[in-house]
Amino acid sequence: MTPKAQNSAPVPRFTLAELAERSGGQAEGDRRFVLSGVAGLSEAGPLDVTFVEGARQVPIAAAGCAGAIFLPVNLELPGRNLIRVGNPRLAFAESLALFHPAPHQPSGIHPTAVVEPGAEVHPTASVSAFCFVGAGARIGAGAVLHPFVHVGPDTEIGAETLLHPGVIVRERVCLGSRVIVHSGAVIGSDGFGYVFDGRGHRKIPQIGTVEIGDDVEIGAGTTVDRATTGATRIGRGTKIDNLVQIGHNVTIGDHVIVVSQVGISGSVTIGDGAVLAGQVGVADHADIGAGARVSARAGVMKHVEAGATVAGFGPQRHSDFLKSQAVFEQLPQMRRRLIELEKRLAAAEAAAGIPKEPGR
Amino acid sequence: MTPKAQNSAPVPRFTLAELAERSGGQAEGDRRFVLSGVAGLSEAGPLDVTFVEGARQVPIAAAGCAGAIFLPVNLELPGRNLIRVGNPRLAFAESLALFHPAPHQPSGIHPTAVVEPGAEVHPTASVSAFCFVGAGARIGAGAVLHPFVHVGPDTEIGAETLLHPGVIVRERVCLGSRVIVHSGAVIGSDGFGYVFDGRGHRKIPQIGTVEIGDDVEIGAGTTVDRATTGATRIGRGTKIDNLVQIGHNVTIGDHVIVVSQVGISGSVTIGDGAVLAGQVGVADHADIGAGARVSARAGVMKHVEAGATVAGFGPQRHSDFLKSQAVFEQLPQMRRRLIELEKRLAAAEAAAGIPKEPGR
Amino acid sequence: MTPKAQNSAPVPRFTLAELAERSGGQAEGDRRFVLSGVAGLSEAGPLDVTFVEGARQVPIAAAGCAGAIFLPVNLELPGRNLIRVGNPRLAFAESLALFHPAPHQPSGIHPTAVVEPGAEVHPTASVSAFCFVGAGARIGAGAVLHPFVHVGPDTEIGAETLLHPGVIVRERVCLGSRVIVHSGAVIGSDGFGYVFDGRGHRKIPQIGTVEIGDDVEIGAGTTVDRATTGATRIGRGTKIDNLVQIGHNVTIGDHVIVVSQVGISGSVTIGDGAVLAGQVGVADHADIGAGARVSARAGVMKHVEAGATVAGFGPQRHSDFLKSQAVFEQLPQMRRRLIELEKRLAAAEAAAGIPKEPGR
Repeated sequence: MTPKAQNSAPVPRFTLAELAERSGGQAEGDRRFVLSGVAGLSEAGPLDVTFVEGARQVPIAAAGCAGAIFLPVNLELPGRNLIRVGNPRLAFAESLALFHPAPHQPSGIHPTAVVEPGAEVHPTASVSAFCFVGAGARIGAGAVLHPFVHVGPDTEIGAETLLHPGVIVRERVCLGSRVIVHSGAVIGSDGFGYVFDGRGHRKIPQIGTVEIGDDVEIGAGTTVDRATTGATRIGRGTKIDNLVQIGHNVTIGDHVIVVSQVGISGSVTIGDGAVLAGQVGVADHADIGAGARVSARAGVMKHVEAGATVAGFGPQRHSDFLKSQAVFEQLPQMRRRLIELEKRLAAAEAAAGIPKEPGR
Repeated sequence: MTPKAQNSAPVPRFTLAELAERSGGQAEGDRRFVLSGVAGLSEAGPLDVTFVEGARQVPIAAAGCAGAIFLPVNLELPGRNLIRVGNPRLAFAESLALFHPAPHQPSGIHPTAVVEPGAEVHPTASVSAFCFVGAGARIGAGAVLHPFVHVGPDTEIGAETLLHPGVIVRERVCLGSRVIVHSGAVIGSDGFGYVFDGRGHRKIPQIGTVEIGDDVEIGAGTTVDRATTGATRIGRGTKIDNLVQIGHNVTIGDHVIVVSQVGISGSVTIGDGAVLAGQVGVADHADIGAGARVSARAGVMKHVEAGATVAGFGPQRHSDFLKSQAVFEQLPQMRRRLIELEKRLAAAEAAAGIPKEPGR
Repeated sequence: MTPKAQNSAPVPRFTLAELAERSGGQAEGDRRFVLSGVAGLSEAGPLDVTFVEGARQVPIAAAGCAGAIFLPVNLELPGRNLIRVGNPRLAFAESLALFHPAPHQPSGIHPTAVVEPGAEVHPTASVSAFCFVGAGARIGAGAVLHPFVHVGPDTEIGAETLLHPGVIVRERVCLGSRVIVHSGAVIGSDGFGYVFDGRGHRKIPQIGTVEIGDDVEIGAGTTVDRATTGATRIGRGTKIDNLVQIGHNVTIGDHVIVVSQVGISGSVTIGDGAVLAGQVGVADHADIGAGARVSARAGVMKHVEAGATVAGFGPQRHSDFLKSQAVFEQLPQMRRRLIELEKRLAAAEAAAGIPKEPGR
């Protein structure tokens, strides 16, 4: 299924040979076959290119009607238009961008936007309807602010950064270049810090900031708290999903993946290339080593070794967790066997004339 | 406690007889008794109607001062004004609507709203202050957009659909009729898809859409990602609570219930009438059969049978999980008993002259 | 690191003696030393004051270059500028406010704001760009509404209450004085209530309200549902973190702490001074006693005693949970030992001539 064209712009078309050349692959089949779209394996129609990564998907592709298929060199799909590539998923991603170029955003400031005195908006940036840009803020070249975006005073938005509708960036925050922030995300909210003064919880003012590196993407509804003092930092190339909580003074390295609904408490450190799966929780001051993989719903209390794969509460090594979890499901049966053993042993002891211990 | 009237509109009043007639029930007691409100069992005052569903609530109702009570036919509450109905909760819901009709929204477009050229707004629709309606969007008859609603280009909003303040609907999304979306919800954010190209995570453009059926309700702060290609789909009559994450290419059937903070990963399928309790997590590509019930906080890895009730990690059958969980709480004691058995058995073996196995 | 001054306002400076006097402490060292900032222990520079709470932090402070240190009376840090105080964290919090006074918000209504007829805005309140204040709403003295704040009809905002950018407060809600609500939070969304009528889920109108006490703080992206009838209540001084869900008809006491991503189902009661750590889930109608502490990720099904510290699913006492969790990690080994015992006992029984039971 090819979705409706955006704003009626003409949809690009490519022949199999052209698409092969652009994706650095080899065309096989009808090189002049014209493709007008790109789609996932289960949705691809007769004019779409799709992709296959492994042998398990070959029968699905064979049964489908895709016009052409990106295929690794070691697989076969006889009688079909193919483009042989080293990384079919990457070719698929690049084709999506080819067939669906990002809609053009007019540069300039919409008449309904409020740009406070002292803010600097680059002439090639786009500031949409109902945007607010505070005093002293700077919006970089080619940056796009969709409607209802709030950029607080003294905040810096890097070049070509894209803020989707309704993004809130508070004061004195710094976003790098080519950052993408999705709707409803909040960057720079106050950290959660109080001190009990004997009568109530007194707020610890959160006067720090947030620093977000180049090429970071932040999902819808995600919240990133500013530091108490200093900065909450997200390294370049890191990708964060929807509804994630990132506490104050957290440091996340480069190229980290954080899946939806993860909660990262204050002062946590996460190394480069780590992966946190969905709904993981990380206790304050914990640290997770570079390249570690934390499985869905794991609870990280203190430390995860670099490169480790962990799961469960603690957490454990992932393989150990799965074994414990398997026994957990047998616990009622194990308990019955334990009781049975106790009875039998008592009988054997009685038969052997072994006296009962006192207190038993 | 009857809350303050909305915008000072007169509060409707009904006699016991009138209310019985409108709810299809039988009045017992003072048929001319005038009721001016409706309230839950613990809040109902002497002019309010309330409801009782089961025998356990009868003493609470008897001790309270409600002016009248919706009661099932098999229960007794002597000396009180009653309305006998088949489904007291349904009668309660209908009475809430009777006593508190939805406030009238003026049709038309507020002067501060921005409606881009090429958008179509039905003359009976209501577009409030600071709304943004993108080019090519269509707003159906009687639809209500509260302030700060964003409707992206080429998006379709069905008849009588209600978008609360601050709802963000992105481009090329389709919402059915009588849909309700609560504040802060985001429909059509990009799915979380990347491919590693050897140096970093490359974004897979998310060019698909979201299709939401008639009579769906979506809670505050919930995020629904658009498909990579094709559509993320939510079937008609499905109700989704607050702060739920719905990943790209998810398909949810009709009349499904999804409670708060559930996380549904990409490409998950959920059958008609299923119920997911709070904080459930569902791994990508999992499927949950029609009518299945997934207990709070369960983790669904792969598959839940239609009609099954499951819990825990995996998950297990709900009753099995409860048994395993009960034993989990006895684990330290079980471990002590196991060590004790080992000692006793060693003693019995020694007494019986059974030799120790090598390596033990 | 001292962050950039807000809107180029001059940064206040204090001598050690002045700061000691303002924090009720005793200066030791160079009383005329000038401090120009305040920072956490790991970020403090040579002109900053920082704080130490316990002996473990003394070496970190000794190795650092902080200009001065708030120190408890029982610790030593020779050769450094010190301020002896009873509660160093409190002195730190107060110093943050001293060095970083809240930026002045101009009173009055921004020309782009929409204030509906019949709304009352106190002359000392600040209503920023793109705010919407509905008919019958009241905004108290000194209240600050940042851009994109929605205050629904008949809603009351107390004196000096601070609503950050993009906060949505729906109709007929009441917020006390000095309340702080962070960006993206939604107050007064509909509770999640339906009744199945045989064909579909019928919405139970949610006509109740939300009442929030004085000095409450509510985090970014948090959702607080209005009651079905009556009110959802949050007591004074209670602090709620980001992305928390609070269901309809919940009652939360005074001075409660609710950490990020907690989910509180409908009709739950939480006593004064309780603490709910991150990602806790509470089932509907459960109650948590005053002063109880619920550990991270615990699932509260029914009841937690006042003053108890609990964890896990159920939950258990925290110390019991940790013991059970420790055994959970040994379960595969326990299972092997159980099987081994069964074999050895069978051998011992055979040697002793004990007959096998029928059916075993």
